[in-house]
Amino acid sequence: MSPHRWKEDLIKLGEMGRRIPAQIESYEQLDPDNGLQRLEGTLESKISKEYMIARMKEAGLKVRIDKVGNIYARKEGAKTDKGAVMSGSHLDSVLNGGMFDGPLGVVSALEAVRIINDEGFENERPIEVVAFMGEEGSAFRKTLLGSSVIAGDISVDEALGIKNGEGVTLKEALDTLALRGNFMMDLGDVEYFIETHVEQGPVLDMEKMPIGIVENITGLSWVNAILTGEENHAGTTPMSLRKDPLVAAANIVLLANRRANEMVKEFGGSTVATVGKMVVGPGAPNIIPGKVEMGIDIRDSNKENMRKLQDEVITAIKGLEGEYGIKTTIDIPFDYPPCSCSREVVDAIDEAATAMRIKTKRMNSGAGHDAQNIAKKVKTAMVFVPSINGISHSPLEWTNWEDVENGIKVLTETIKTLSKL
Amino acid sequence: MSPHRWKEDLIKLGEMGRRIPAQIESYEQLDPDNGLQRLEGTLESKISKEYMIARMKEAGLKVRIDKVGNIYARKEGAKTDKGAVMSGSHLDSVLNGGMFDGPLGVVSALEAVRIINDEGFENERPIEVVAFMGEEGSAFRKTLLGSSVIAGDISVDEALGIKNGEGVTLKEALDTLALRGNFMMDLGDVEYFIETHVEQGPVLDMEKMPIGIVENITGLSWVNAILTGEENHAGTTPMSLRKDPLVAAANIVLLANRRANEMVKEFGGSTVATVGKMVVGPGAPNIIPGKVEMGIDIRDSNKENMRKLQDEVITAIKGLEGEYGIKTTIDIPFDYPPCSCSREVVDAIDEAATAMRIKTKRMNSGAGHDAQNIAKKVKTAMVFVPSINGISHSPLEWTNWEDVENGIKVLTETIKTLSKL
Repeated sequence: MSPHRWKEDLIKLGEMGRRIPAQIESYEQLDPDNGLQRLEGTLESKISKEYMIARMKEAGLKVRIDKVGNIYARKEGAKTDKGAVMSGSHLDSVLNGGMFDGPLGVVSALEAVRIINDEGFENERPIEVVAFMGEEGSAFRKTLLGSSVIAGDISVDEALGIKNGEGVTLKEALDTLALRGNFMMDLGDVEYFIETHVEQGPVLDMEKMPIGIVENITGLSWVNAILTGEENHAGTTPMSLRKDPLVAAANIVLLANRRANEMVKEFGGSTVATVGKMVVGPGAPNIIPGKVEMGIDIRDSNKENMRKLQDEVITAIKGLEGEYGIKTTIDIPFDYPPCSCSREVVDAIDEAATAMRIKTKRMNSGAGHDAQNIAKKVKTAMVFVPSINGISHSPLEWTNWEDVENGIKVLTETIKTLSKL
Repeated sequence: MSPHRWKEDLIKLGEMGRRIPAQIESYEQLDPDNGLQRLEGTLESKISKEYMIARMKEAGLKVRIDKVGNIYARKEGAKTDKGAVMSGSHLDSVLNGGMFDGPLGVVSALEAVRIINDEGFENERPIEVVAFMGEEGSAFRKTLLGSSVIAGDISVDEALGIKNGEGVTLKEALDTLALRGNFMMDLGDVEYFIETHVEQGPVLDMEKMPIGIVENITGLSWVNAILTGEENHAGTTPMSLRKDPLVAAANIVLLANRRANEMVKEFGGSTVATVGKMVVGPGAPNIIPGKVEMGIDIRDSNKENMRKLQDEVITAIKGLEGEYGIKTTIDIPFDYPPCSCSREVVDAIDEAATAMRIKTKRMNSGAGHDAQNIAKKVKTAMVFVPSINGISHSPLEWTNWEDVENGIKVLTETIKTLSKL
């Protein structure tokens, strides 16, 4: 393994989309005011993808771009009739995020192939490195977008028709950047999938554990609500005549928070509920709001509990109509059930790590990942590496280089093992 | 009275600052997407002021502009030793507002003087028509700005140093537009003040009452709070480890609303509390908010109740620190106590209306007005005319022409009476 190779890739990718250009090489160099923002459809996205495509081609891989902009790089195997081992993640970021969430998984997979090349290891199954399009849903508002298409959850046409905040469709954006192809991956041709990713939580860092192996990926649902009341003068409208959607919305914020806390206490599970988005219009201090748009993020690795909390939130939102005289509309842009990983792949990762005397911890993922889409059709698991202080989706997201290296080692050995099965 | 004169003034002023040029003459012509926006420091503001100055001069008045841009137009009286009768309002608007809030009071006062001229009525006291600068606080963020200076609440220098959203000081803005003078009005030379204004509430319109006479103007205080928690991943941060400022803020929204409702029930007063502004950052559905900025608008015509509610809100905000592990900062940009109008002026308005068989209703003003500043030093009252559906601060703000005419009639007769006292 040549550390400068994967490290250089991560550092260079880590500059593409930063507000102030900076190649950041250590935690100490992080600047909370200089996050990385690389949304699908932007020039920064194009630059990062072209950088990775060039590296993939340098490694002798055959690069194919599919109809929604997922990028695959293939190393053929000795046996042509066997399904591939696929590994990768995504290159897009959240608003004002960090440099590891996504790129780490793509670079790690490419580095694994480069090591396999260097070693002259003869893989029997083909190996596919993948960079999924639009995982974060930051520009085109559906998370896990590229992997949803190849998993068959939504059609190519539906995906291409999704618009970003500027009203540009995904098709237009990809075509403008020349990042759309004609290929379509058939997951029937893939036998195994492994995604390397930062944990995005504090567990590995707190326990000084280098590798997490994901056994379950949380279910994830968004409930978007628009509450429409009556915009009015804050001074001349008596309390009794108000239809204030913000007062109504405050009840939902508290309910979602309280019920998630109660369910954790009652069932000991991983239930979380978050109102991260709340836009109050028109937003002047002396005008009673006329409209509130809110997004409630609900997650649980237990399917029934997740459904229960979602139902309670929706019922409560509808109940606001009678109580506050407002109108409500509810949209559920996605609703991913919890997902169990493949025992076979989890064990393969564990054995690879143990053989190298690298400690592992089996755990659940509280974040959603492309892996949960692929897992519907392919034997799948994830390799987690520590997030310093559990921070991600932030300019302060960081993973130490030795942890990245451990992740690559474990991934490489796992791919080698699986490619022979 | 020549209706086309004041009507023409209001219609012409009503075009100056509209997004799509339109001289709107009837309620049916209103366009919710074409509000009037005339902020201090803008070209639209200059055009409207120069229009009014030209009309004032045509009426034979002596126009003086003071050090912060308030405009006065004087008709001398027969007795030089008596304090003036002053009347007027403001010409600036809110963001996306209507054409009556403000200009109505300036045009009505000028029309009263024109009628007095036409009639050859000999006023003993001088009459001053006034157009106050910056009542709405839309550009330079202090409401009632011009009247605060002449009432002695803030100094000329302090006012001139206030910056708008573009970082331009009031002094620079007024100088650029040549709208700053050297005069200063001494309120010791003013005996009476009457402001004609749209009600901005539904009472007169609902009760088919042509004239409201304001006995009390509400007190008004803003509590601006910034709640800082810990931005984090919505999926991987357990409920127990969160420091979510939006959950904390939701408590304040509900508390302010509940307590205002309770105080209205307990004391039968006019208490209102509104959270009109709430900005949640970073604002992504899958990120636990790190920061909430909120503005709470508290009003009451009872001084003690207003203070009590303000104290309760502030105490509750501070209490969030311990309960939610967040940090809070509180700013009170202004805190105007409630103001009682002059019984003498209120009675004079009532007698003038009654003599013309125009019905009146004594009422409180829930909105703040320049009159409350002038009332600190001058015997003051207000004439309200109906707002259709109670709407103001909106492109749909409207007052029927016959109501405007009634207001002018009552104002004119009141000024005549007071000018002889």
